[in-house]
Amino acid sequence: MSDVAEPTSGRRVRGGGGASRRAERTAVSFDTARFITRNIPNFEILNAEALEIIEWNADTVLEEVGVNFLENPGALALWRAAGADVKGERVHIPRGLARKLCATAPSAFTQHARNPARNVEVGGRNLVLAPVYGPPFVRDQSGGRRYATMADFRNFVKLGYMSKWLHHSGGTVCEPTDVPVNKRHLDMLHAHMTLSDKPYMGSVTEPVRAADSVEMSKILFGADFVDQHTVMTSLININSPLTFDSTMMGALEVYARAGQAAIISPFIVGGAMAPVTVAGTLTQVLAEVLAGVAYSQLVRPGAPVIFGAFVTSIDMNSGAPTFGTPEAAHITYGAGQLARRLGLPYRSGGSFCGSKLPDAQAAYETANSLNMALLAGVNFMLHACGWLEGGLVSSYEKFVMDADQLGCLHHLAQGVMMDANGQGMDAIREVGPGGHYLGCEHTQANFKTAFWRSDLFDYKPFETWDEEGARDTETLAAERVTKMLGDYQQPDLDPGVAEALADYVARKKAAEPDAFI
Amino acid sequence: MSDVAEPTSGRRVRGGGGASRRAERTAVSFDTARFITRNIPNFEILNAEALEIIEWNADTVLEEVGVNFLENPGALALWRAAGADVKGERVHIPRGLARKLCATAPSAFTQHARNPARNVEVGGRNLVLAPVYGPPFVRDQSGGRRYATMADFRNFVKLGYMSKWLHHSGGTVCEPTDVPVNKRHLDMLHAHMTLSDKPYMGSVTEPVRAADSVEMSKILFGADFVDQHTVMTSLININSPLTFDSTMMGALEVYARAGQAAIISPFIVGGAMAPVTVAGTLTQVLAEVLAGVAYSQLVRPGAPVIFGAFVTSIDMNSGAPTFGTPEAAHITYGAGQLARRLGLPYRSGGSFCGSKLPDAQAAYETANSLNMALLAGVNFMLHACGWLEGGLVSSYEKFVMDADQLGCLHHLAQGVMMDANGQGMDAIREVGPGGHYLGCEHTQANFKTAFWRSDLFDYKPFETWDEEGARDTETLAAERVTKMLGDYQQPDLDPGVAEALADYVARKKAAEPDAFI
Repeated sequence: MSDVAEPTSGRRVRGGGGASRRAERTAVSFDTARFITRNIPNFEILNAEALEIIEWNADTVLEEVGVNFLENPGALALWRAAGADVKGERVHIPRGLARKLCATAPSAFTQHARNPARNVEVGGRNLVLAPVYGPPFVRDQSGGRRYATMADFRNFVKLGYMSKWLHHSGGTVCEPTDVPVNKRHLDMLHAHMTLSDKPYMGSVTEPVRAADSVEMSKILFGADFVDQHTVMTSLININSPLTFDSTMMGALEVYARAGQAAIISPFIVGGAMAPVTVAGTLTQVLAEVLAGVAYSQLVRPGAPVIFGAFVTSIDMNSGAPTFGTPEAAHITYGAGQLARRLGLPYRSGGSFCGSKLPDAQAAYETANSLNMALLAGVNFMLHACGWLEGGLVSSYEKFVMDADQLGCLHHLAQGVMMDANGQGMDAIREVGPGGHYLGCEHTQANFKTAFWRSDLFDYKPFETWDEEGARDTETLAAERVTKMLGDYQQPDLDPGVAEALADYVARKKAAEPDAFI
Repeated sequence: MSDVAEPTSGRRVRGGGGASRRAERTAVSFDTARFITRNIPNFEILNAEALEIIEWNADTVLEEVGVNFLENPGALALWRAAGADVKGERVHIPRGLARKLCATAPSAFTQHARNPARNVEVGGRNLVLAPVYGPPFVRDQSGGRRYATMADFRNFVKLGYMSKWLHHSGGTVCEPTDVPVNKRHLDMLHAHMTLSDKPYMGSVTEPVRAADSVEMSKILFGADFVDQHTVMTSLININSPLTFDSTMMGALEVYARAGQAAIISPFIVGGAMAPVTVAGTLTQVLAEVLAGVAYSQLVRPGAPVIFGAFVTSIDMNSGAPTFGTPEAAHITYGAGQLARRLGLPYRSGGSFCGSKLPDAQAAYETANSLNMALLAGVNFMLHACGWLEGGLVSSYEKFVMDADQLGCLHHLAQGVMMDANGQGMDAIREVGPGGHYLGCEHTQANFKTAFWRSDLFDYKPFETWDEEGARDTETLAAERVTKMLGDYQQPDLDPGVAEALADYVARKKAAEPDAFI
């Protein structure tokens, strides 16, 4: 199929230095689809007038209200030098300045994987899919809900590696709570680097951990390669409203200086961290991204960044965030338009749901979110599979359920083939009124690729399904998880590199005492 | 809320004859949302060139291949008189003729309900939602899967009546298999007319049953009113490919002559009844609708009709139809564009799924279908809730799950408010960096209507949910079904009308022996 990247086994990959030379030894037999390139339009919910109002208002917010850069005198100095009006920790950015600074950010970039066949292009009409990020709990059908461990983390990396429609290994696929807080980033990076050959994310919880991420990447790819190429895309959240803390900005500074990519992302529960209306939230999102991206370009002009928008609605009865809702869709569509007008890659969407179980609620909410994200023009979708319970839980079953549904997005994005074969006039002439198409030549020539097919769902006759145990989707998914983890084979890695990575992790772990908060 | 029709209790409704005068006595206390009027764009997947190719090809099919009107000499005579080339039962329609004949069909029409507050406008930017149609089985959590009975039918009509986001009572919400085939239409119509006051569909399984539907409607609305207004929208399926049988055409003739609306709908499992490619299927769909709608206008120029498209993909491994797939989405988007270019209301979409249970598979597939249908510009969505197992089963739980999700579509369609309140600048100024919005004036003024909220899903904290029994969506839905059926109150109906309807049913039932096939 055309949407599956060629396996690299047995063929020589040229160029790219050490990473490429190692790539041929890391080839694996699992199919991975190429990242999505859309052949369909984006859905544009806002007209030009609405977009101009929001852009004007965002500049008004930056100038009049300003943004806080906390405990970060270096940032304040950069802003002052760039022409902002800095009062205490509050940065007032004159109308137009932030947008002007954003102009040096690339509209698209390549994130390299250690297997070059897994490189991804972020921006343009592309969509790169990465798994769930951040949950402290995991759930599976047999074990229920429990704190996540490093063993769970490794399992999720393996599942991601084997998931055909997932292009990216992600970052904190769950929080390994059995490893000290100040050391777990080392184990997590090591897992992504050794258990998968897909691209991955770096640590952002402290600037020193971001620096460790860069150092380990240099071991994996070679230092020169990392100096010249983007090998990580990491998640920098803004403390909405309008606040940039020194931890996140410190990590951003490390990555920007190293030429590594960052998603600069407001994190908003609507009605709590932003106005309760869609246009108001879009205004704040745009103001925050403008300030964050502009700052990244002050640190290093040309640093690759992504316009992020993580926005949920809220249940005003309980205060719980809600997912897959119409208001979240409005914001996701609108923010995509704003990102394209800024000329930046766009991150939003995900397998969002509030349900406690991988049940119908989870699937309705997730499907709403995934479909919206495709049509909104998202370029990088974090949380594309495995998210459960408002992001508190990484679900094994939902991971494979969502990962299967991501195949839908690939085929939707292909659009409609209008060549002679696509038009099928010969078939209509051959079959005629009252006939059937199953046996006709056109059907025989096209049936293998004509229709997307789930690898998970039940398509059997009722009687067969009933005799086989009347399994629901969660049960089918649990069986698939077991099968995948049983079939897993680690991609090859140069033994010298593997040893150097293990040494780095061991050395850094020994250098300081464990911390659990 | 603005999207909820006013209850009619206590206010005088003017005009409209007997139906309107009866309306004030049929007012009920349940909210019913007004049909959707979109304030968002449609998603247009095909460019102008692709649309022109498909339109050209459809005319080629009608002229070269032709369509069959079986066992219907009257239809052949009408076609011959209109200028078609009729050979046997094959009608070859010269290029452009069908489209020209379609021009007399209205681009929109009102379907009247016996409660005028429930009237629906079909066409334009509107979307009318009606429940599942046709399943011979029902399923609920406690009783499992079983043949549907008239008791089930009445339950589904009651659930539809009480579902806020459902505008239409539908037709064969399930097949009441315990009533003789030749008499069940009488009981079904009687249930819609007496247990609900929403608009409904007529019988199409024999022309005489269509005639019964018109007669019973005359009892309910008054004969003059029915002569002058559309009070039924009924489903006329085309036997794809390109075949119009005398049963369906006979029903269409009855309805068209009576000025009653018909959905003229290809029924296509892709790869079996149409070419295996999207553009080929769209060509055949358009050719079939052109022929069917043109025929309706030959029978009675100006008869209200809807451009229908029921299209699924197929699992080429098992031959099973598949739902919520990318190819079905492509066809639904494309057919919407073709319908708008023809100036006809468009029917497609639904709560489609292949799953045997109201589980995650069912919800993914359904959400994919519902979202697509909204953005495709569908005007009349049959099967909008309750569909399970490829349409073999009406599911009690899925009916209320889907019906709840239809609320999402209402709010999505509202689009983004861009007035000063929507922009929320005062709120951003008031709260500032690092603040929170929950208590601010703007939030307090808007929170009740800002975010759509499910009436079914679980939004509780994990601990509360766990203590209350860790219920999944199906279980929550089962409880909701029980509650709704317990709370049901029949809308008032003039006792004379009720008696006349009962008499009509009894008389027709006594007039012929029972038939079960």
